[in-house]
Amino acid sequence: MSDDPLYDRGMKVRREVLGDEHVERAIAATTALTQPFQDAITRFAWGDVWSRDVLDRRTRSAMTLALLAGLGRENELEMYIRAGLRNGLTAAEIGEVFLHTAVYAGLPAGNRALAIARRVLEEEQA
Amino acid sequence: MSDDPLYDRGMKVRREVLGDEHVERAIAATTALTQPFQDAITRFAWGDVWSRDVLDRRTRSAMTLALLAGLGRENELEMYIRAGLRNGLTAAEIGEVFLHTAVYAGLPAGNRALAIARRVLEEEQA
Amino acid sequence: MSDDPLYDRGMKVRREVLGDEHVERAIAATTALTQPFQDAITRFAWGDVWSRDVLDRRTRSAMTLALLAGLGRENELEMYIRAGLRNGLTAAEIGEVFLHTAVYAGLPAGNRALAIARRVLEEEQA
Amino acid sequence: MSDDPLYDRGMKVRREVLGDEHVERAIAATTALTQPFQDAITRFAWGDVWSRDVLDRRTRSAMTLALLAGLGRENELEMYIRAGLRNGLTAAEIGEVFLHTAVYAGLPAGNRALAIARRVLEEEQA
Amino acid sequence: MSDDPLYDRGMKVRREVLGDEHVERAIAATTALTQPFQDAITRFAWGDVWSRDVLDRRTRSAMTLALLAGLGRENELEMYIRAGLRNGLTAAEIGEVFLHTAVYAGLPAGNRALAIARRVLEEEQA
Amino acid sequence: MSDDPLYDRGMKVRREVLGDEHVERAIAATTALTQPFQDAITRFAWGDVWSRDVLDRRTRSAMTLALLAGLGRENELEMYIRAGLRNGLTAAEIGEVFLHTAVYAGLPAGNRALAIARRVLEEEQA
Repeated sequence: MSDDPLYDRGMKVRREVLGDEHVERAIAATTALTQPFQDAITRFAWGDVWSRDVLDRRTRSAMTLALLAGLGRENELEMYIRAGLRNGLTAAEIGEVFLHTAVYAGLPAGNRALAIARRVLEEEQA
Repeated sequence: MSDDPLYDRGMKVRREVLGDEHVERAIAATTALTQPFQDAITRFAWGDVWSRDVLDRRTRSAMTLALLAGLGRENELEMYIRAGLRNGLTAAEIGEVFLHTAVYAGLPAGNRALAIARRVLEEEQA
Repeated sequence: MSDDPLYDRGMKVRREVLGDEHVERAIAATTALTQPFQDAITRFAWGDVWSRDVLDRRTRSAMTLALLAGLGRENELEMYIRAGLRNGLTAAEIGEVFLHTAVYAGLPAGNRALAIARRVLEEEQA
Repeated sequence: MSDDPLYDRGMKVRREVLGDEHVERAIAATTALTQPFQDAITRFAWGDVWSRDVLDRRTRSAMTLALLAGLGRENELEMYIRAGLRNGLTAAEIGEVFLHTAVYAGLPAGNRALAIARRVLEEEQA
Repeated sequence: MSDDPLYDRGMKVRREVLGDEHVERAIAATTALTQPFQDAITRFAWGDVWSRDVLDRRTRSAMTLALLAGLGRENELEMYIRAGLRNGLTAAEIGEVFLHTAVYAGLPAGNRALAIARRVLEEEQA
Repeated sequence: MSDDPLYDRGMKVRREVLGDEHVERAIAATTALTQPFQDAITRFAWGDVWSRDVLDRRTRSAMTLALLAGLGRENELEMYIRAGLRNGLTAAEIGEVFLHTAVYAGLPAGNRALAIARRVLEEEQA
């Protein structure tokens, strides 16, 4: 525990959503270059936003997957697809998120995310 | 009723989500230039995607609002904020969608959508 | 005529595509702040790219309209819709450009551009 | 043939533009997760939009390549570069599409697409 | 002063960069809907990021203006152009930011931001 | 030296910013397909924009890195991170550029660029 309640709350929620294993790996990989970024996102994304209970985590996961696909931020899709399962989305619902995304962000955005989802979901089911 | 079941199903769902009044206005405003677009989106967005029950409409509304805000498609935000209320999102939840969006699409995207939401939600409550 | 052939060629093509009236207005409105930008785009966009005959101007107009709609750069749509007519696109073809854009950039991008096109094309036909 | 004329028309046009080999591969790779997406895009992108003759396929190919490059949807560029050749664009014209795109979407967008085009076009010519 | 040092530091830096008048207006306009967003950005954007001295504020202003122009987030440009002057950028340097942005994000992005800059800078000089 | 002063000035600045080795490689790799693009960007990006002294190169590097990260143009990040060091940015300042970018373009944009920066900076320091 640090002496910063915002950081501590963020780290707790981040572990619950992304999994202990992922967070341990991220902490172990942190360097002087990436430390300020890691700290700021723990406080803001996890301590300030994801920790609020106005929206449930399943809905937050659906929105996050839609945004990552729509904005073309492919590198975080795998991590958030696994988090989506942890937050209660089924494989079929995750596929549906990307079909829905295609309506608003164009077919290539949905198609690309669905290809990544297919691989990750097959790994999870294996 | 047309003789195209995909179109008919789309028009039914579109009316349920966007409201009869909005759809009547859109139909009245359709010209030779916009007719093919109106028909195609009724089939695809409403007949093919929104009509599927894999995801509930409340979750679809949350994702749609996040995508419109994140991609900067401001002109449809008002219509979909009203649709969000119709689909069961509360005003506080709609505000939360845009706070969540700010994490993944940047603060200006969230801030702009929240300003639009504030105006629309005050109109709805009046 | 300046002593810069790239600039002169650019200004000639720019006038042909955007119209003398538009270019005169742009020149009259130029200030010390905007001069370097105006000069650079005349050389690059018009002298270096639009002046090449590898692709005809009608195809360039179609691509430009698709890109402006897809990237959400609304402020230049009106100018380039008028240029599209000048370059040989019909009103129906311009509408079709935005239906096509909706497939790859999402429905809101196409819908917004079509609304602008409708107004501009009605003005041109009046 | 299915009993859905929109789907059948879409599949026919999709085969003509993307090639039988590509479409066979896509069908063989379809799973329960990706089926709804495949069906919806066959109807919308190919049955509703690409099948319309308001714009010729060569112009549609040029716009599609510009949009994919401008929006950074790299994963479909290869498929659509090959489709562009099939639709009558020459290698030089495809290069020109990406030079034109750079004007409106920035130099990195054009540069990246041109690097992919170079590799794909050399493969096609070999 | 609140009992949250991150918030207090953020509010101090926010006032220095955006001006007391702007911040007072933002506070007065805050509602239950926008409060969580206002608090989170004060902590994250101003308390966590802008308050770090690894980069000077003039460089941060230049990057912020480039990002807002490149991403098409027009609504915050005016506020950050005024902040740029406060942080030591000259009018000519702000114009140059948008010429530079045009290289990487396309000419329309730079052109639009420059039009806004021209108006705001003329107001500031008046 | 060519007989085009804009091109010559561009090539000189391009070599100073990107390094002789990079530019020699780019020239050696140029084909008939990529030549017009290479010439146009040498004139526009390097001869017309980067060669202007209204903004120093260190500030231009910071803005360029922010734009590439924010727009998701990952393929040029490595080249411009090395250019940033050449233009006087420290490793810590480059990391800070991407933390700042995260505020305006979202956390995934900053996170991805930071991962690339970490690898490139470790290579440079080795």
